[in-house]
Amino acid sequence: MELNSILSTITNTNGKFAEEAQTRLDSLTKPQGSLGRLEEFAKQLVAITEKEMPEIDKKVVFTFAGDHGVAGEGVSAFPKEVTPQMVLNFINGGAGINVLARHAGAEVIVVDIGVDYDFSAAGSGGNVPLQIRKVVNGTKNMRKGPAMTREEAEKCIAVGIALADEYAKKGYRIFGTGEMGIANTTPSSAIAAVLTDKSVEAVTGRGTGINDDAWINKVQVIKDAIAVNNPDPSDPVDVLAKIGGAEIGGIAGLIIGAAANKVPVIVDGFISTTGALIAYLIEPKTKDYMFAAHMSQEIGHKSILEKIGLRPILDLDLRLGEGTGATLAMTVIEAGLKIYKEMATFAEAAVANKT
Amino acid sequence: MELNSILSTITNTNGKFAEEAQTRLDSLTKPQGSLGRLEEFAKQLVAITEKEMPEIDKKVVFTFAGDHGVAGEGVSAFPKEVTPQMVLNFINGGAGINVLARHAGAEVIVVDIGVDYDFSAAGSGGNVPLQIRKVVNGTKNMRKGPAMTREEAEKCIAVGIALADEYAKKGYRIFGTGEMGIANTTPSSAIAAVLTDKSVEAVTGRGTGINDDAWINKVQVIKDAIAVNNPDPSDPVDVLAKIGGAEIGGIAGLIIGAAANKVPVIVDGFISTTGALIAYLIEPKTKDYMFAAHMSQEIGHKSILEKIGLRPILDLDLRLGEGTGATLAMTVIEAGLKIYKEMATFAEAAVANKT
Repeated sequence: MELNSILSTITNTNGKFAEEAQTRLDSLTKPQGSLGRLEEFAKQLVAITEKEMPEIDKKVVFTFAGDHGVAGEGVSAFPKEVTPQMVLNFINGGAGINVLARHAGAEVIVVDIGVDYDFSAAGSGGNVPLQIRKVVNGTKNMRKGPAMTREEAEKCIAVGIALADEYAKKGYRIFGTGEMGIANTTPSSAIAAVLTDKSVEAVTGRGTGINDDAWINKVQVIKDAIAVNNPDPSDPVDVLAKIGGAEIGGIAGLIIGAAANKVPVIVDGFISTTGALIAYLIEPKTKDYMFAAHMSQEIGHKSILEKIGLRPILDLDLRLGEGTGATLAMTVIEAGLKIYKEMATFAEAAVANKT
Repeated sequence: MELNSILSTITNTNGKFAEEAQTRLDSLTKPQGSLGRLEEFAKQLVAITEKEMPEIDKKVVFTFAGDHGVAGEGVSAFPKEVTPQMVLNFINGGAGINVLARHAGAEVIVVDIGVDYDFSAAGSGGNVPLQIRKVVNGTKNMRKGPAMTREEAEKCIAVGIALADEYAKKGYRIFGTGEMGIANTTPSSAIAAVLTDKSVEAVTGRGTGINDDAWINKVQVIKDAIAVNNPDPSDPVDVLAKIGGAEIGGIAGLIIGAAANKVPVIVDGFISTTGALIAYLIEPKTKDYMFAAHMSQEIGHKSILEKIGLRPILDLDLRLGEGTGATLAMTVIEAGLKIYKEMATFAEAAVANKT
């Protein structure tokens, strides 16, 4: 099976590179360790890329879009039509992710992996490319049965891997993940409950901003979906298929593909991290290639980050998704790399070191 | 007195501008409030500048440098010579602040406000200007008596105000604060203890990286300095003079001048925030113009931030100073402003709003 052959190529990062990076960091004109996590980011980039002086000049964020049958259960504050409308907004450059990607000097690639809308007419009008890699026309309603078949879930992962391969070959040096899909905090919370062994209530938030009654309904919908589908927590693909979403599968695949290509990948918020958890449970070595962008306002996010063992970079009360947090974190990670590459050493600057 | 006439021009920001900014933020294609603190930053910039569409294209960080007589008491891991050596490193573009300022698109202005070294020969060789506004040739040893006279402390504040005026007139739209001065966490901790009513132990950290014995000595030195000088907590200028430093006074002045000129100012870490606390206690309205860049590793920082009532933007285990955190936070604040200015509205993008 193709997935297994890709997984077999993924290795842990090599500690030797991190050690060499540490030696350089300690020679720079600052007290040792005084730039904290900026130094860690540089070290991790060196370890991932196995390059003494990594470049992350070509940056890209993938915004995977998908619809969800469960949107019909009143779990979101926004109507389902907003998914394709926002895809068009991405293509036209007007969304939050577009603004922050321009700020970070990153490109946005919008991926229709499961939107219930035909974009063939919309095509490539704007500045932002739309990749049509549709696996499903929206998932099925998981309250009544599996959201996807196992084959569809595997296809979603394969789409992500293929994109990672293509963009790594095109010379992109760092990836960000993102997503759009009305109702997609619902499958994310369902996955979080099943895979972190927390109660549904403990990992279910307000999404785009639902009220108390809608939240109570959302929790019940998730409980029903888990009861109806009985996903196997020891089989992440089964979980993804039964109570997940196309964009979550695409993100899991992108992360697996990033690790296979030794490309660092910045994981956005709650939904993206759910994808990262699927990738991590398929192959734990993928963790070495991940950066956690931020701590989302969605309450389930913390549990998933802890399950993988990731510490978020930013904590700015974000809960938009799209890849906005990943793109903002990109600028901070890049700052760390520049510190590592551009600062003068004690010797170069003729500065006395610690006594 | 000139300071009082400047203080009388400082007003709280006008809530009307923040409200108008909120209306625009709520019309953008995202769930309301979903970009969290990025939205707050934009709102605060609108309120400060009283402009519907603020510009922060010209950015500058001021790195105030000063020496400290108390360095002779073994409170730092680095020798005193490092202060002028690092000033030269700044001018030559090799320090952490230079790297991060380039990353943020900001200029660095190095201000010799109290270095015990004659830079007149070093002059303006490099790309980074050195402003020689020397008030003292290093402070006196505060363990034995006042670090500065009251007149010197007032002069330091006046230097900061004058720089704020000059750079506001030159068209700079956002300021960052920074500092360099071997031993300057010692006066900062002393000020923190006196002005936040915490024990010296609770606000004294490891600075550039001292060991346990040196920390015990540092705490004793601070206690002695407070006992010898008996600074009046109700008189921030008295505290600044007796147990402070020239760069801390310069930063306090810069913040007062920023508020008087309606220019936003990003306060860096522990030492800078000590300066901000002096400014705040002189005129509490200055708080409206401040952004707190980050939460430093220095343990006294949290107490000072809480005393002013500021929530830091970043938490990256930084403890370098120089303005590094302020400059990094500048990129995040700018991201918030771009969100506010560049995102499409629901109407423009033909996206359905919340049901």
